[in-house]
Amino acid sequence: VEAMSTEAELQKIEAIIFDAYGTLFDLNSVAEDADKIYPGKGRDLLHHLRSKQLEYAWLRTIIGKYKDFESITKDSIRFALKKLDLPVIDDAVDRLYSRFLDLNPHSDVENALNDLDSLSIRVSILSNGTQEMMDKVVEHAGLSLLAEEVVSVEGSHRFKPHPAAYQHGLDRLEIYDRKRALYISGNTWDVAGAKSFGMLVGWVNRTRQPFFDQELLEFRPDYEFEDLRQIKQLLRV
Amino acid sequence: VEAMSTEAELQKIEAIIFDAYGTLFDLNSVAEDADKIYPGKGRDLLHHLRSKQLEYAWLRTIIGKYKDFESITKDSIRFALKKLDLPVIDDAVDRLYSRFLDLNPHSDVENALNDLDSLSIRVSILSNGTQEMMDKVVEHAGLSLLAEEVVSVEGSHRFKPHPAAYQHGLDRLEIYDRKRALYISGNTWDVAGAKSFGMLVGWVNRTRQPFFDQELLEFRPDYEFEDLRQIKQLLRV
Repeated sequence: VEAMSTEAELQKIEAIIFDAYGTLFDLNSVAEDADKIYPGKGRDLLHHLRSKQLEYAWLRTIIGKYKDFESITKDSIRFALKKLDLPVIDDAVDRLYSRFLDLNPHSDVENALNDLDSLSIRVSILSNGTQEMMDKVVEHAGLSLLAEEVVSVEGSHRFKPHPAAYQHGLDRLEIYDRKRALYISGNTWDVAGAKSFGMLVGWVNRTRQPFFDQELLEFRPDYEFEDLRQIKQLLRV
Repeated sequence: VEAMSTEAELQKIEAIIFDAYGTLFDLNSVAEDADKIYPGKGRDLLHHLRSKQLEYAWLRTIIGKYKDFESITKDSIRFALKKLDLPVIDDAVDRLYSRFLDLNPHSDVENALNDLDSLSIRVSILSNGTQEMMDKVVEHAGLSLLAEEVVSVEGSHRFKPHPAAYQHGLDRLEIYDRKRALYISGNTWDVAGAKSFGMLVGWVNRTRQPFFDQELLEFRPDYEFEDLRQIKQLLRV
């Protein structure tokens, strides 16, 4: 019965909404470039900057003092450099920041979006990044024609996983029933947030983690994929 | 002029409110005990469990789905064990959790609280921990007589740094003017949250970090201490 209801729900889907960082776009290119500037430190730098980026975004969402994701990203890069006792040079900060504007898509992305395009499914992106960051990274990756709408949370002055950020995405896409959006993310906190908000949710688990975060089990996704191309099969039911 | 206004503000202080974990209580005893169970892994375990503890608490605050800090702490211990490929045995989870109930206070705490007691300053604690966790750790540390009120955020169903959590503390202490509370924390995110909320705030920076978090500079503390005994000098002005 549950499968039937899910099938019926899938047939009503008006759009698929993808998260950007870590879902469509591979953040490892930031680590690789960091490694060229600071040999041997790329991975640690990415780890510290990514966790600080989330910490700042969430902290500001909780205390209600929004700041744009470009500033937050640059401050996170500075924090990560300091943390690793590396010199905080403006040129290096700018260079690392610019990597966020020309990230490579994960290897399954182009095919998956082409598949959805050929099925005439509406595809969009909802990201914590600013509109400018998103427009640049999508254009650089050559995905502009495949993603119809690229939405930043900035209009809501909240970051995901705040319900207002997801709601802003649906408002911009003019989707009036949460259940008519299928939201896809590679980040478990984002899956949990979208699920708690009330959309249909798919988790792309490329690294095949053996468990969905135990603490967040009540917000587990409706679907799990190892590869975004599996979405097509789901919709063909 | 700014110093004068601060002095006037200090004379109106009705209570000093301390954060617990990392401010009064030293979390390193968790790492030491973890190291006995999993030799060489104690530090990493504490790092992962502490960052996950915050992540869960903040995520749930953002999405509005509160869960008590005891459950969150146990889930974070499980996550940290999995993350380090260590066996997740219930006994080990319980043993590590019980360390949160008998943490050692930092070495300056007893003297500092005695000083404040002799000055007849009202001393209280506001923590993300549950009331039961707090009562146990305060009693075990022999601080029950020195801290008049021990308040958990649980009544607010929000975790710090959400303004509702700080407000809950003031409500419980019957302090009706935020500026009449001096809030002390060792965690920069907590300093920023309390400052944004509107209390007078002191940062205890025992490890002498050379910078207050750059991103949070607009929420920097009114006072910085290397040792909690310095609070007495401040109040004697």
